[in-house]
Amino acid sequence: MEFITGVKKKERLDLSQLLEEEMIGSQVKVDGAIHTIRNMGTVAFIILRRRDGLIQCVFEEGISKFNLKDLKEADTVEVTGVVSESQKAPAGIEIRIHEIKILSEPSEPMPLPISKWKLNTSLEAKLNYRPIALRNVRERATFKLQEGIVRGFRDFLYEEGFTEIHTPKIGAKSAEGGANLFKLDYFHRPAILQQSPQFYKQMMVGIFDRVFETAPVFRAEKHNTKRHLNEYTSLDFEMGYIDGFEDIMAMETGFLQYTMKLLEKDYAKELKILGINLPEVKEIPTVRFDEIKKLVSEKYERKIKNPFDLEPEEEQLISQYAKEEWDADFVFVTHYPSKKRPFYAMDDPTDSTFTLSFDLLFRGMEITTGGQRIHDYQALMQKMETRGMTEEGMEQYLSSFKYGMPPHGGLGIGLERLTMKLIGEDNVREATLFPRDLSRLEP
Amino acid sequence: MEFITGVKKKERLDLSQLLEEEMIGSQVKVDGAIHTIRNMGTVAFIILRRRDGLIQCVFEEGISKFNLKDLKEADTVEVTGVVSESQKAPAGIEIRIHEIKILSEPSEPMPLPISKWKLNTSLEAKLNYRPIALRNVRERATFKLQEGIVRGFRDFLYEEGFTEIHTPKIGAKSAEGGANLFKLDYFHRPAILQQSPQFYKQMMVGIFDRVFETAPVFRAEKHNTKRHLNEYTSLDFEMGYIDGFEDIMAMETGFLQYTMKLLEKDYAKELKILGINLPEVKEIPTVRFDEIKKLVSEKYERKIKNPFDLEPEEEQLISQYAKEEWDADFVFVTHYPSKKRPFYAMDDPTDSTFTLSFDLLFRGMEITTGGQRIHDYQALMQKMETRGMTEEGMEQYLSSFKYGMPPHGGLGIGLERLTMKLIGEDNVREATLFPRDLSRLEP
Repeated sequence: MEFITGVKKKERLDLSQLLEEEMIGSQVKVDGAIHTIRNMGTVAFIILRRRDGLIQCVFEEGISKFNLKDLKEADTVEVTGVVSESQKAPAGIEIRIHEIKILSEPSEPMPLPISKWKLNTSLEAKLNYRPIALRNVRERATFKLQEGIVRGFRDFLYEEGFTEIHTPKIGAKSAEGGANLFKLDYFHRPAILQQSPQFYKQMMVGIFDRVFETAPVFRAEKHNTKRHLNEYTSLDFEMGYIDGFEDIMAMETGFLQYTMKLLEKDYAKELKILGINLPEVKEIPTVRFDEIKKLVSEKYERKIKNPFDLEPEEEQLISQYAKEEWDADFVFVTHYPSKKRPFYAMDDPTDSTFTLSFDLLFRGMEITTGGQRIHDYQALMQKMETRGMTEEGMEQYLSSFKYGMPPHGGLGIGLERLTMKLIGEDNVREATLFPRDLSRLEP
Repeated sequence: MEFITGVKKKERLDLSQLLEEEMIGSQVKVDGAIHTIRNMGTVAFIILRRRDGLIQCVFEEGISKFNLKDLKEADTVEVTGVVSESQKAPAGIEIRIHEIKILSEPSEPMPLPISKWKLNTSLEAKLNYRPIALRNVRERATFKLQEGIVRGFRDFLYEEGFTEIHTPKIGAKSAEGGANLFKLDYFHRPAILQQSPQFYKQMMVGIFDRVFETAPVFRAEKHNTKRHLNEYTSLDFEMGYIDGFEDIMAMETGFLQYTMKLLEKDYAKELKILGINLPEVKEIPTVRFDEIKKLVSEKYERKIKNPFDLEPEEEQLISQYAKEEWDADFVFVTHYPSKKRPFYAMDDPTDSTFTLSFDLLFRGMEITTGGQRIHDYQALMQKMETRGMTEEGMEQYLSSFKYGMPPHGGLGIGLERLTMKLIGEDNVREATLFPRDLSRLEP
């Protein structure tokens, strides 16, 4: 029997430790994967790829005690050497190698030139070699930024008194109705995969007042477009005791403000790698659905085809309008028509053909749907009746309202779409580690 | 068009704001659900339930400008009144009500006595009324603590240089093989729900060196026990450049140390409500599988029935042993037999019938399985061949190894089991918001 006492300080150092000023001239150990080897004859530059960046190591004949020929790209190694300043090295320092220990070796040479700055490969090829393509430093940076977005979402909401919840993805009934559901057999009972945590987060408002969840959702939509995924990560929150649906938009604006600051502070390296300028979110314009439809139609001389919904092209024009007229990257479109919103959406008391709901558009694309929900049991039952819905399978959801619920509302943010627009890509698969679409079920 | 500028300060205050010393004597607004009304005649105590606790409000005839009869339990309200000290009130202050505004009303009286301190109801009844039962202050405290555990996991790992990932739950192939998989139809292709993010987190080690995920996993196990769920939240991490599988146990020990401190600091209220003494995790004993089996068999005079696995009763005895002999709530059991571990587990080079793997037991139950993985492509292919496995559907997973992977390992922690043992319950459903088991698919 022995005891484990926690994380011990390792002999091998991180990049941040190597960069401390007093390290210059010290002998150190560092590990990483060999990203490239540039052999200049008596000298060779060996670039290590680590989670925290690239480190230049220098092989010098006579000083370095190993045979350069024993090394190859994609070996993982432990380098022992001396830190020295180097303005040409990616991190401003380099390590003059004394010894190198090979920890693991690949079996075959790389199928993609991952050490190039930009991986000039088709998206299709990148996805087919996903676990290899992401070893490219630019490719992986997107997903580090994505971490920052989720982190910002959670940390901001913790501060605002929200509680994180974990709700089931397998269920008997979904919030949005029958279409586009993945079906499965659950011990000989029909079951579905949840399209959203809608019912659960509403029920939890009765318990914690403010809740959020960051989890996968599943949509069996047969769209093969650049903006659709059949499984994605949804950032959801729901909050009680609101004065109106403006409170929800204010909370989302707060999240964006918080997160842009967090990215600037903690993810500067990735922003630089990807050459990203973060959008301003000091304020976000809000405009009514019917109003902006008209404004856009007039300004860009485009006929309104569908008065009840926004077409993708219209979303683009609204964003163009918001940029041109209000210098805004984000724009809230409010008061969507009732007939296009789910039964639980609260109708505008001044005109029940519209709802107290909104979408957030970011650079031409809807990234959020939200709004106020019906909290009164009788009103909810009436709305369901109007829509010809039955209570079946929704008893517990409805019981929350029967036994009292505060005025509340919430939203869902598509993480991959937000990431995509932030990095300036136009295919959501670029911002998804392992996309699921009509044709892609692997890896 | 208007602008949304972010979260505005509200007139209604939080409990923490009410508790500031200078608030005594001030007129304030506060919202909440009416938890109980105790009518004493000319005075009545109205307890508000909020996310941050209970607040005592006092109705005084003549001073409070409303009719007490208009109020009932489960109304949500906005109270206007004056803060005064009160040693008998749950928060040490009370609000003497001037006015009260009803925000929403229930349709029916509560089906459960949720305002009682302890909800003396069967688990079955609690689950049947889940969204109502959780309004009990003790019942909900468990899930606030659960938030703290996940928060501790993430925050600790961020500090240790891990990257958070989001991997797909629908897939073509699972890591653990064919048994116990939920199957679904994915656009006319057979698909499964992932039992673990194992393959994905290993692939991602080749990219970020250290990764973690907190997400649902799905197991179609036909066990109807107190310890099994068919869907649960798995806290997974995987780390590269390890010196041995002890590094993984050290990281888990670090997580537990960090999290217990976090709970003590930020979740003191819930610990007190539930009367919980947190376990010591200064050090965790590790003991070999074969060794502890023998020790337990000798000490408790129990015959070893299955030399390759631990029975639930054996897990309990091991924990009892660890408590009695080493005063430990946690114990690592190492070197599980190879035949009970998946193909990717690394065999002990000194005896290949055992693996470099471990389980963590906590108060009588396995809450973690982890270990070092095979990182060498040829070794992995050999192990698969030995087990009669084919590469089909695993091409991308295997390509990670073909093109080089560092020595690595990781683990998965069952969030609900860890929560259950922490709060001293013996049914995992007590620590699951909406459990999924053989009979339960709703709510």
